[in-house]
Amino acid sequence: MDLNQITSPSFLKKLDKKQLEQLSREIRKFLIENLSVTGGHIGPNLGVVELTIALHKTFDSPTDKFIFDVGHQAYVHKILTGRAGQFNTLRQYKGLSGFPKMLESEHDVWETGHSSTSLSAAMGMAAARDMKGEKNYIVPIIGDGALTGGMALEALNHIGHMKTNMTVILNDNEMSIAPNVGALHSVLGKLRTAGKYNSAKDELEYILKKIPAVGGKMAAAAERLKDSLKYLVVSGVFFEELGFTYLGPIDGHDFYDLERNLQYAKKMEGPVLLHVITKKGKGYRPAEDDKIGAWHGTGPYKIETGDFVKSPTIAPSWSGLVAETVRKIAREDKRVAAITPAMPVGSKLENFAAEFPNRFFDVGIAEQHAATMAAGLATQGMKPFLAIYSTFLQRAYDQMLHDITRQNLNVFIGIDRAGLVGADGETHQGVFDIAFLRHMPNLVIMMPKDENEGQHMVKTALSYDDGPIAMRYPRGNGLGVPMDEQLKRIPIGTWEVLREGTDGTILTFGTTIPMALQAAERLSLKGMQVKVVNARFIKPLDNIMLRELFADGKPIVTVEEAVLAGGFGSAVIEYAHDVMETVPPIHRLGIPDEFIEHGSVDKLLEEIDLTVDYLERDMEEMIRKHAVEREIV
Amino acid sequence: MDLNQITSPSFLKKLDKKQLEQLSREIRKFLIENLSVTGGHIGPNLGVVELTIALHKTFDSPTDKFIFDVGHQAYVHKILTGRAGQFNTLRQYKGLSGFPKMLESEHDVWETGHSSTSLSAAMGMAAARDMKGEKNYIVPIIGDGALTGGMALEALNHIGHMKTNMTVILNDNEMSIAPNVGALHSVLGKLRTAGKYNSAKDELEYILKKIPAVGGKMAAAAERLKDSLKYLVVSGVFFEELGFTYLGPIDGHDFYDLERNLQYAKKMEGPVLLHVITKKGKGYRPAEDDKIGAWHGTGPYKIETGDFVKSPTIAPSWSGLVAETVRKIAREDKRVAAITPAMPVGSKLENFAAEFPNRFFDVGIAEQHAATMAAGLATQGMKPFLAIYSTFLQRAYDQMLHDITRQNLNVFIGIDRAGLVGADGETHQGVFDIAFLRHMPNLVIMMPKDENEGQHMVKTALSYDDGPIAMRYPRGNGLGVPMDEQLKRIPIGTWEVLREGTDGTILTFGTTIPMALQAAERLSLKGMQVKVVNARFIKPLDNIMLRELFADGKPIVTVEEAVLAGGFGSAVIEYAHDVMETVPPIHRLGIPDEFIEHGSVDKLLEEIDLTVDYLERDMEEMIRKHAVEREIV
Repeated sequence: MDLNQITSPSFLKKLDKKQLEQLSREIRKFLIENLSVTGGHIGPNLGVVELTIALHKTFDSPTDKFIFDVGHQAYVHKILTGRAGQFNTLRQYKGLSGFPKMLESEHDVWETGHSSTSLSAAMGMAAARDMKGEKNYIVPIIGDGALTGGMALEALNHIGHMKTNMTVILNDNEMSIAPNVGALHSVLGKLRTAGKYNSAKDELEYILKKIPAVGGKMAAAAERLKDSLKYLVVSGVFFEELGFTYLGPIDGHDFYDLERNLQYAKKMEGPVLLHVITKKGKGYRPAEDDKIGAWHGTGPYKIETGDFVKSPTIAPSWSGLVAETVRKIAREDKRVAAITPAMPVGSKLENFAAEFPNRFFDVGIAEQHAATMAAGLATQGMKPFLAIYSTFLQRAYDQMLHDITRQNLNVFIGIDRAGLVGADGETHQGVFDIAFLRHMPNLVIMMPKDENEGQHMVKTALSYDDGPIAMRYPRGNGLGVPMDEQLKRIPIGTWEVLREGTDGTILTFGTTIPMALQAAERLSLKGMQVKVVNARFIKPLDNIMLRELFADGKPIVTVEEAVLAGGFGSAVIEYAHDVMETVPPIHRLGIPDEFIEHGSVDKLLEEIDLTVDYLERDMEEMIRKHAVEREIV
Repeated sequence: MDLNQITSPSFLKKLDKKQLEQLSREIRKFLIENLSVTGGHIGPNLGVVELTIALHKTFDSPTDKFIFDVGHQAYVHKILTGRAGQFNTLRQYKGLSGFPKMLESEHDVWETGHSSTSLSAAMGMAAARDMKGEKNYIVPIIGDGALTGGMALEALNHIGHMKTNMTVILNDNEMSIAPNVGALHSVLGKLRTAGKYNSAKDELEYILKKIPAVGGKMAAAAERLKDSLKYLVVSGVFFEELGFTYLGPIDGHDFYDLERNLQYAKKMEGPVLLHVITKKGKGYRPAEDDKIGAWHGTGPYKIETGDFVKSPTIAPSWSGLVAETVRKIAREDKRVAAITPAMPVGSKLENFAAEFPNRFFDVGIAEQHAATMAAGLATQGMKPFLAIYSTFLQRAYDQMLHDITRQNLNVFIGIDRAGLVGADGETHQGVFDIAFLRHMPNLVIMMPKDENEGQHMVKTALSYDDGPIAMRYPRGNGLGVPMDEQLKRIPIGTWEVLREGTDGTILTFGTTIPMALQAAERLSLKGMQVKVVNARFIKPLDNIMLRELFADGKPIVTVEEAVLAGGFGSAVIEYAHDVMETVPPIHRLGIPDEFIEHGSVDKLLEEIDLTVDYLERDMEEMIRKHAVEREIV
């Protein structure tokens, strides 16, 4: 069939097993072809083709609510709900989102991006349903990786306690993004390998009947034995203990198994957990064979060979630069350890892990635990490097504040993917970290201008003994600058003048430095000399340089690829008002007070006026006005 | 013995059971007497007298590390480590902290206040020990309530996976602060009531021996049956599944049981969970009989009667005012539901819970789940009221950002205990919320000047349909103002002039309004007329009024009982620089960039210069300078 013709999932109700299998093949072909051009989360989506079809066949969306945890596995759902025609715009500006979006479809009832939210959302929806006396089904679909996130465990605990009607689909592909870690993983592993439980149960009941009749004490014990039957069969006792009815494991690529169990789950009272085994990348060999998560989310690729189409670059990736510098220093400093919450590949820590297996900790999707474990290491004199994406550090806000900064512990926080990240969109933009970290006492926050300064900052961080220190670095690759052989420390709180000028100053750091230099260059052609400062320490500010600039009275523009409210520019004007009676004109450019959708980073920067053009114009106007005012005075 | 003579816990090694019991009695007497004067966490500490003594007798602190989760149950530990003499200063400014503090003693190896951090910290300490090749014991002590916090569950999952040597003490008193909720609670309940497991195990083995010999398939099944023995006895299977060796439950007030099991746990490899049953308030009848948590933490009380010594007040508590107004509105609006993460009493939601049991959710210590469950309710058209202390909202930062504000859902967040809280100290001060919420798009943040405006704000929040809205209110009681009969809505983003004046303006809100009015009054006696504005909306600002003030050019002082970095004053100067070419003098008073220790709120305000005197002086200076500048121009 033509997938573009689908407008609603209702057509599935009439399809038989053969037709469903045919549809699965077509959807797989569609995904493999489309994503080879646009890129996207191919592995997770190929794994849930049959599962998603079966869900839409069994339940009635949007009356019944599907809540996709993380959400990057909702492509098949998007196809079945009438969005196949938009896949050529996937993850592009104003195009189809890579995650569920309420504005795209009434079938998207919950938006995600971060993991482990689905069960709490489902509990809220189920509670609302019960309060309103309605009867629909609430169906969260959560991966085995996301299940280890603390908030998912909090929700399991609450749902099991409340005995709320809900059908939880545990999509178990034995991977989150990287292979899973955690004791829960081995719980699931045991369930997967334990074979057919019902027959085991039958066997045991047969045995029990053979137990000779015994009176008194023995009879009571035999009764207890029967009561405990559920423990005999290794049948999801973990979930049963938490108050769920456990069903499974079932083959997530077998329509017969799926439909039978989903129908069964529908009929049950209370919370049900249906354990579905799927294979990530199913149906596309390169993705199926992937062991490290390379096919979790990809750019464009060649279908025949599975080769990734990549623009050649000689510059190292930021993640790699940081991780490798940490590894280099770890050879000489035994106190250095590295922690990642489920991102060993994204954070490029594989080499570190291989060289220092006892000093490397992948804690799974558990950002809170990762941060506080780092704090624990630091109390014992270790030098933990916590590698974490800016957007996921949001999950560890209280741990940063209450455990790391309050106790002033020597933790090096590597804030990866800081700034706009592009295609992943509003849930993943790393633009809040400055605003949510800057008010934490004791914390140093820095961002390098290029990868050479970056390696020195890693050295600076791991040599720093006065408390926590965070280094932000963007997604993608460095600039390809020459690298110093010798690592050196950068004095804390010192900025660097990159270009001299006396008519005005641009204060900026990291990714927006090239923009500032370009604007200054253009302005110099117009006869205006603008100073450009690499404000590499966001906290503490370079107060000495700032006081000079303020005293000078010339216009200042701050530029940051981060939210304006409470951000770096805000820190500059705060300081100005703290120390000056008369404050010079200061403008702040950055991310406005709204969530920034998906699209290429360049396009997004343009949309929010974070461009050379705007900066040039703004600085020019300020300089002209300032000159006029001076004349008037 | 004289408890004041204790300098180190080493004396415990030589004491026999009788002497230990005698010591327990003395410590109880000491606690009951001292806390009757100072107040403090009496219930939790009376419950852990024997447990703490046994821990210090069995292990060697500080080589072995005790990590008290939450930390308010560390009083006995403080007595045994030489701090009895300081109990008359408990929770007072520069006095003994109510929580572990590294600066107080080398025996305090981890500082807490918020719950559920101990296992992650312990994992970090254990990893450091193993990396360094040391051999000490790591002993986190965690309550059954704290165990349901997501980060504790994340840590359990990681520790069980790593098989790290660690002795977890589960201090199970069937209460967190309020009675516990959650499925894990019933897991523990089953363990508690299951009696003597070892004998059950013996019985069952006897039965198994009686199973007639069967060949082939049946023999294999019988083998499996034996393998599954651990499931037969309801023996902590939940923890065993997670990779822990479960021991218990044992009587936490029986030294024989405690010492035997602690010694046994010491000898085991891998992580051990020792389940200890204690009674909160043990040994003091009023606290023992407490069912609702009134004796969890108290002010001074009369020992004989158990009556609380309270200064009489006619004004309603802020928590009560808000909760009761929500209840009133809920009678007419069926969409209103209330959620609390384990604080039904503190948030004064008992009446709401009694009247609307189906619309009330105590989710246990699970702030993340609470916030996202509220978001889930809101997606279905409900009007959830999330009652949460400012300091605990820190745990739900990402849920506020990623789930509630990003999806622009109609959640009413009641931020209780906003501002300085006093005796609980640095882990509990509610001073960060403005800085961490202000950069969240779509969010309205407000704070009332008194309880009458407070009730109207509750009405405003529950009538608001354009997204999330937060209302801050302080710890303690209102001002005792007359209350309007009729609830009304306050237009979003409008401020209120409380006192007219033309020489300068004070912008403030909530608890610091009286300070501003007083300063203005004093200044008027000196001939300076200062306007005082109730800036009740922290976001959005009253831009119309602000533009007028800015255009006027007169000095402005902002005052807030919250951190300055990125706070309300910061918002005011941001806006000034956004819209004005020439910005008037603006000073910001508030909490500096440091953690504020424990002490009375008045004393703390004085220490950070958040006083009428300072405000008066600062405003006066600004007005004088401004006048001089005007003359020069």
